[in-house]
Amino acid sequence: MSKESQRWVFDFQDLDDAKHAVGGDWDAVRGLLGGKGANLADMAALGIPVPPGFTITTKACNEFASQSNQMPAGLWDQAGSALKNVMSQTGRTFGGADNPLLVAVRSGAKFSMPGMMDTVLNVGMNDVVAEAMVDKTGDARFVFDSYRRLLQMFGAIVLGVDAERFDHVLTSARRAHGVTSDSNLDGDVLREITDEFKKIIATNGSEPFPSDPMDQLQLSIEAVFKSWHSRRARDYRDASGIPHDLGTAVNVVAMVFGNTGPTSGTGVAMSRDGTTGEPHLEGDYLMNAQGEDVVAGNRPTKPISELADDAPECARDLLATAKQLEAHYGDMQDIEFTIENGRLWLLQTRDGKRTAQAAVRIAVDLANEGRISRQEAVRRITPEQIDFFLHPQFSGDEITRRPVLAYGLNVSPGAAVGVVAFDPDLAQRWAAEGRPVVLVRQETKPDDVHGMLAAVGILTSSGGRTSHAALVARQFGKPAVTGASDLDIDLANRCVTIRNITIAEGDWLSLDGTTGRIYAGQVPTVDPDLDNDSLATLLDWADDIRTLGVRANADDPIEAARARRHGAEGIGLCRTEHMFFGSERLPIVQQMITAPTLAEQREAIDLLLPMQREDFTGLFEAMDGLPVIIRLLDPPLHEFLPSWTDLHRTITDLQLRLVRAGDLQAVESLITELHETSAMLARVEALSESNPMLGLRGVRLGLQLPDLTRMQVRAVTEAAVGVIRAGGKPKPEIMVPLVSHHNELAKQRLIIEEVAAEVMAESHVDVPLQIGTMIEVPRAALTCEQIAEFADFVSFGTNDLTQTTFAISRDDAESAFLLDYLNDGLLDQNPFASIDDDGVGQLMRLALAGARRAKPGIESGVCGEHGGDPASISLCHEMGLDYVSCSAYRVPVARLAAAHAQIQTTQTTV
Amino acid sequence: MSKESQRWVFDFQDLDDAKHAVGGDWDAVRGLLGGKGANLADMAALGIPVPPGFTITTKACNEFASQSNQMPAGLWDQAGSALKNVMSQTGRTFGGADNPLLVAVRSGAKFSMPGMMDTVLNVGMNDVVAEAMVDKTGDARFVFDSYRRLLQMFGAIVLGVDAERFDHVLTSARRAHGVTSDSNLDGDVLREITDEFKKIIATNGSEPFPSDPMDQLQLSIEAVFKSWHSRRARDYRDASGIPHDLGTAVNVVAMVFGNTGPTSGTGVAMSRDGTTGEPHLEGDYLMNAQGEDVVAGNRPTKPISELADDAPECARDLLATAKQLEAHYGDMQDIEFTIENGRLWLLQTRDGKRTAQAAVRIAVDLANEGRISRQEAVRRITPEQIDFFLHPQFSGDEITRRPVLAYGLNVSPGAAVGVVAFDPDLAQRWAAEGRPVVLVRQETKPDDVHGMLAAVGILTSSGGRTSHAALVARQFGKPAVTGASDLDIDLANRCVTIRNITIAEGDWLSLDGTTGRIYAGQVPTVDPDLDNDSLATLLDWADDIRTLGVRANADDPIEAARARRHGAEGIGLCRTEHMFFGSERLPIVQQMITAPTLAEQREAIDLLLPMQREDFTGLFEAMDGLPVIIRLLDPPLHEFLPSWTDLHRTITDLQLRLVRAGDLQAVESLITELHETSAMLARVEALSESNPMLGLRGVRLGLQLPDLTRMQVRAVTEAAVGVIRAGGKPKPEIMVPLVSHHNELAKQRLIIEEVAAEVMAESHVDVPLQIGTMIEVPRAALTCEQIAEFADFVSFGTNDLTQTTFAISRDDAESAFLLDYLNDGLLDQNPFASIDDDGVGQLMRLALAGARRAKPGIESGVCGEHGGDPASISLCHEMGLDYVSCSAYRVPVARLAAAHAQIQTTQTTV
Repeated sequence: MSKESQRWVFDFQDLDDAKHAVGGDWDAVRGLLGGKGANLADMAALGIPVPPGFTITTKACNEFASQSNQMPAGLWDQAGSALKNVMSQTGRTFGGADNPLLVAVRSGAKFSMPGMMDTVLNVGMNDVVAEAMVDKTGDARFVFDSYRRLLQMFGAIVLGVDAERFDHVLTSARRAHGVTSDSNLDGDVLREITDEFKKIIATNGSEPFPSDPMDQLQLSIEAVFKSWHSRRARDYRDASGIPHDLGTAVNVVAMVFGNTGPTSGTGVAMSRDGTTGEPHLEGDYLMNAQGEDVVAGNRPTKPISELADDAPECARDLLATAKQLEAHYGDMQDIEFTIENGRLWLLQTRDGKRTAQAAVRIAVDLANEGRISRQEAVRRITPEQIDFFLHPQFSGDEITRRPVLAYGLNVSPGAAVGVVAFDPDLAQRWAAEGRPVVLVRQETKPDDVHGMLAAVGILTSSGGRTSHAALVARQFGKPAVTGASDLDIDLANRCVTIRNITIAEGDWLSLDGTTGRIYAGQVPTVDPDLDNDSLATLLDWADDIRTLGVRANADDPIEAARARRHGAEGIGLCRTEHMFFGSERLPIVQQMITAPTLAEQREAIDLLLPMQREDFTGLFEAMDGLPVIIRLLDPPLHEFLPSWTDLHRTITDLQLRLVRAGDLQAVESLITELHETSAMLARVEALSESNPMLGLRGVRLGLQLPDLTRMQVRAVTEAAVGVIRAGGKPKPEIMVPLVSHHNELAKQRLIIEEVAAEVMAESHVDVPLQIGTMIEVPRAALTCEQIAEFADFVSFGTNDLTQTTFAISRDDAESAFLLDYLNDGLLDQNPFASIDDDGVGQLMRLALAGARRAKPGIESGVCGEHGGDPASISLCHEMGLDYVSCSAYRVPVARLAAAHAQIQTTQTTV
Repeated sequence: MSKESQRWVFDFQDLDDAKHAVGGDWDAVRGLLGGKGANLADMAALGIPVPPGFTITTKACNEFASQSNQMPAGLWDQAGSALKNVMSQTGRTFGGADNPLLVAVRSGAKFSMPGMMDTVLNVGMNDVVAEAMVDKTGDARFVFDSYRRLLQMFGAIVLGVDAERFDHVLTSARRAHGVTSDSNLDGDVLREITDEFKKIIATNGSEPFPSDPMDQLQLSIEAVFKSWHSRRARDYRDASGIPHDLGTAVNVVAMVFGNTGPTSGTGVAMSRDGTTGEPHLEGDYLMNAQGEDVVAGNRPTKPISELADDAPECARDLLATAKQLEAHYGDMQDIEFTIENGRLWLLQTRDGKRTAQAAVRIAVDLANEGRISRQEAVRRITPEQIDFFLHPQFSGDEITRRPVLAYGLNVSPGAAVGVVAFDPDLAQRWAAEGRPVVLVRQETKPDDVHGMLAAVGILTSSGGRTSHAALVARQFGKPAVTGASDLDIDLANRCVTIRNITIAEGDWLSLDGTTGRIYAGQVPTVDPDLDNDSLATLLDWADDIRTLGVRANADDPIEAARARRHGAEGIGLCRTEHMFFGSERLPIVQQMITAPTLAEQREAIDLLLPMQREDFTGLFEAMDGLPVIIRLLDPPLHEFLPSWTDLHRTITDLQLRLVRAGDLQAVESLITELHETSAMLARVEALSESNPMLGLRGVRLGLQLPDLTRMQVRAVTEAAVGVIRAGGKPKPEIMVPLVSHHNELAKQRLIIEEVAAEVMAESHVDVPLQIGTMIEVPRAALTCEQIAEFADFVSFGTNDLTQTTFAISRDDAESAFLLDYLNDGLLDQNPFASIDDDGVGQLMRLALAGARRAKPGIESGVCGEHGGDPASISLCHEMGLDYVSCSAYRVPVARLAAAHAQIQTTQTTV
């Protein structure tokens, strides 16, 4: 087909043609017509009342851009035909004075990008048409309200006039006439405003306002095309992972008017509650208004439940239509509607945005209602949504004591604590510096999205539940409170005043998106509540699907118990060094390290034995019947001693005091202290290393201090003996860290086996002990076949493995250059967040292949932080690891991500 | 064949039988009969006069050990038959009083282990035999000299008597009779000494001296078998890489006597000079003596050149035989001979030990004489021998000024500077602590070998060129001086006095094994002299053989010129940071690092440009026509600043002085200084990293300071332009360090190309610039296919690659645990000395495969310290690298090792 004859335009009635054009695939139809256009055509086919109209395809948008913003050949002819068709369906004439047709020109991309692209309403209006409409309707208020809206939108969007110039005129007019709402301005005033708007455009616009309706239409279509490439749209797509080459469709729709009087109105509705997921219609509407009034939030909206009073028949129709659409699409729908003189029109339907809680509730309900499968319910929930459940909430106790600074709408749940920033650029900059930021705005605009994404929480003084701020916050899981009208934001002085309390930019603020409450300062947060029935159900379904095990990294019984509640199937990593930092233990540990003789060292080690035994007993009890992997002491010893710098400062201080000291007794005491500090300093210096990450730690330490290894193994085995005697079923697994050569493991294993055998012989109790190793050094991965000969299991320590594979010290790099790398696009992802497939992943695959050659079926897992990262979990599933281990809070996320990985595998292999 | 019928014994006449028994292979014959036994049989077959005798095989030795030191069945019968055969050949009777046969029982393993195992002479002597011999010869002196030697050796070796007891008797006798040599004691005295020796054995021996000659023979054979397993023999084998399961053969040889009077004598000779390699007979002899007298050094020997006076006919025969043997074996021979009443007997021949210089000279001469191929000449020289040429020598100027403390024999060349230790255990301990040690002994014994190996140099007050000390020192390339008779060693007071100067244990001493001179204190050493014709010839031949290129790591023109003289084919690594430490540069570098503004930083960088340009110009001139790889700045910046510790100490000091300061001016000046120091400290702290090895360095730095990269690239390109204009042919290659992701290289490459293009455009000169990268991070190796897309060449930085592959910081580990690992056998080799094949080698192979997929034939090399290590060079050759790069001094070693690798490949593939 030559370009001339390509079909750029589809009437809403032409769904079958569109399907045929793309081979029948619904996703392709959405790609061609955009989500809005496809659904309008779909609704028309379902017999749902949508205004007549047509869609210009996304291909036309791309063609337009590729031809330096020239309309593709043939488009205008096809649009003209389609417009004629609309005229014949409506019985009105576009540009005609007699029975004029006005149209809306709406953007509509494949994926919803709320507010990101442009829409022009009431296209087709001019002075002649306006007067004819007044003559016909006798409603000058309505006509000039419509006209001024066209001028306002067309001026701002098509002709580049600053929108505030129009707002200023309206504000003055409202003030002059003592009304609060534009709809209360009368026809004469609106006519004057129309004239003023025309003057503003003549003075400030890139060209005068075109009175020819066809010119209006063409320029509006072009403006929508161009808006696809606007910075805010690009930013949004970058943040949402939407490709830039999709283009937007343009929908030209016959106008229906919600502002023709008291029996007209407009609104948005969700087929289920977008915040809680409860199965009832939810939304906002305004009588005698056009759609933008609802979204912009400059008139207080009414809850959808009240529509039954204002327009009972329409309310019934709306509910029925919502149910029909939900059944048709198998998901909760977000609907735009207009009531024109008592008649309901659907302007749009799409899958509704929702909070994480709502998403889970809706998915589970839909599955239980039989509308979708359980697997589909699991598939629909993202790991980020599960993660949201795990966000900390404010402590209940603390909140009851704290004064509430202000209330707003609880539009996106979760607690956020950050410093106040009043503009998105500052928010972004501070966030990049690592400061948590709460973005505070009167209302947010699409241009603010980069700051919203950077912020931990969003607070606006105006705007409703469906305001831009609320939509974006919910979509990206940011806690948000909107419409907190007590806020008086003073941008000039960079502060906000709330009932006499002034908070400056940079001050701390806490907000609770779950309750809509705002607090001054930093409110402490507490463990999240996971007791959500829908979530529990969904995660059970995920468990049924997944094949990858999920364990937790936990170092004490409380954490272990929490992990088990969250669904962990064992402990994948207990870091025994965490047990050494307790206040009653650290002095003993230091005694062990600084002991001048082996005997004294052994004495200190012996003191640690009962403590460690108790630790392990608690872990085995909490994880009874499940495997518990205990890693032998890993970090360099100097981590347990005071820092070199502190000791040095103390010595300097003592020396200065000595110089100034008056009496002999003070001198003596200072000298004693100096001696002791110097002795500790000497030990710290002896243990100091240029690169501790690559130094004396892990198995190297275990081999140098075999008594310490013996003590830990004894504690593990004795604890297991105790639990077995008490009727429990401990499954201890001892893990040797930082092995780089199989001989290290072989030698350490001998010690472990010897001590374990001793304890079993002493107690006459048989402990099912497994001995394995971490693979966290490139050489261990490369020689895993040799290492596996001495290992019952292997566990990838992907944090350390990433550090050595990249030669990047995480401590240093994330401040020094890694963030630059991510910002500059040198790295696609932070390799400490998601496993680097090309490098670290390759090593893991080499290691697994080697280990399996040595021992087919050897148990393998991941115990780095990557164990809680969905992309990494997917990789681990692909590699056929047995489990991932992550922090207790990430366990539910990992359960879901593991199920997703399995679904993905099934889908790609089927 | 059953064990009973196994053949344990071969007569010297039975060479063909022995060859047949092992399938004809000469190496296997040596394995069966030992080197000495095989050569004795071989000489017999050549018609060279060797005393009749037979060899008990090495298999018998192993069988003896495996049967708990029981003679293998059948051995004794076979030995009896062989002994009968010797009796019939000599016409004498073993144990017979009439015409008694005495035999020597000599050890003889496959590989020569001089002095390590036991020998018993004059076996078959007893009171009856002695008296009969006196009757027959009338020479009581000779007979009882022989008898007392048997008692002495048998007592010490077989019966475990302390050898010093016998020495003491001899010393007293010499003193009592006013003679200096045992051979001057008369028959009666020796008869008394014989009696005394028998009493000593009766009192101190494990059993009485057996008068039955057959008992003597059996016990002597068993003693030789046992000596294979002695500690000193094991130590020697460990040090020489000789397997422990070879066993020793035992040669039972009819005694011929060099001590029957003035027409008898004994000596050792080398067919060429073992020290210089000159083609003349060299050696020592004594008339009227037995062989041990020559080796032990307790009588001054005569140089072999004087034998023509003492025994002209024998001297002629000896020279002819030496030439015959050299021609037969194709190598310089070390011969033991005895003259019995004017008749020459060969007791042994073997390939002669030689110094490194002699080895090279001999190999080249033999090749030039057509006796061996050039390839064989190259093959015979070890890298260690080449290395020896490269050992530093004492500075000529310095030596002419220094007083010589003492002179000795220059038995093993090279300069040694160390602290004096008087016993081998102390020498070993100090060496382990990292102190260079000179072992000072009256003479060395096989028990001293561990201390000799640990020492950097060996000095003895007695002993000749063929003394134990001299042999061992030459073999292991230790500088040594022997027979420095002015030394008066006082073991009780742990000091040595040399003409009134007393040197205590632990004091510094310098010795020159090339000249035999000894100096007090530490004499400065200078560059070795490589102007050796034979070496140059040999290395030329090596160059003809090798396929692997050899470049040098050099950072300045002088080093580059030296490297080129040593045969380097370019510079494989110029570390530009070394250029930054010059005294006039460091302040500018520090200014660059601490500059508060970008402009000031750029100013400092601009100051460095002309200096760097000059550096590179010098390199290009020195390596004209050869590639010069210049690595961009690599180390973390803080390395150029004062240390944290020093700054902190300065501040403490300033604070203390401030507290004590008197006048205002002093206070002000101290405060200013404090401010400046604190500012520097702040910068140092800001740059400090927990793990600098894994931190902000290499390309990370280059990307963060692009102006620095630009300056370096400009300096390289401008230098090349200058050299081209002067008629030179520079081949600059710029190398980007520490790349772990291809995007880093891609981005850095853009900058390099941009600047190079600028300079070329400005100068209208085309510079053939190559841009490549180091592979020194595991991820770079793993993703080398991606990286090679942006690299014209790759060079393995195996030092860093080893650190990250093992997760071992070299700085820390070699003191902390790596040495323990090597001592405990956890690691076979230090991976920083030889490339770890399993881990690092695997990564290199993965990287090469990837790089070659991306760019077949891409240039690759190694520029770590491993580039000078023979084992690593062999590995690099196998991998098909294009070149190795090492320090200038290692270049000749690398040339030889590369030739060896090629010879090895040819031999294994043919």
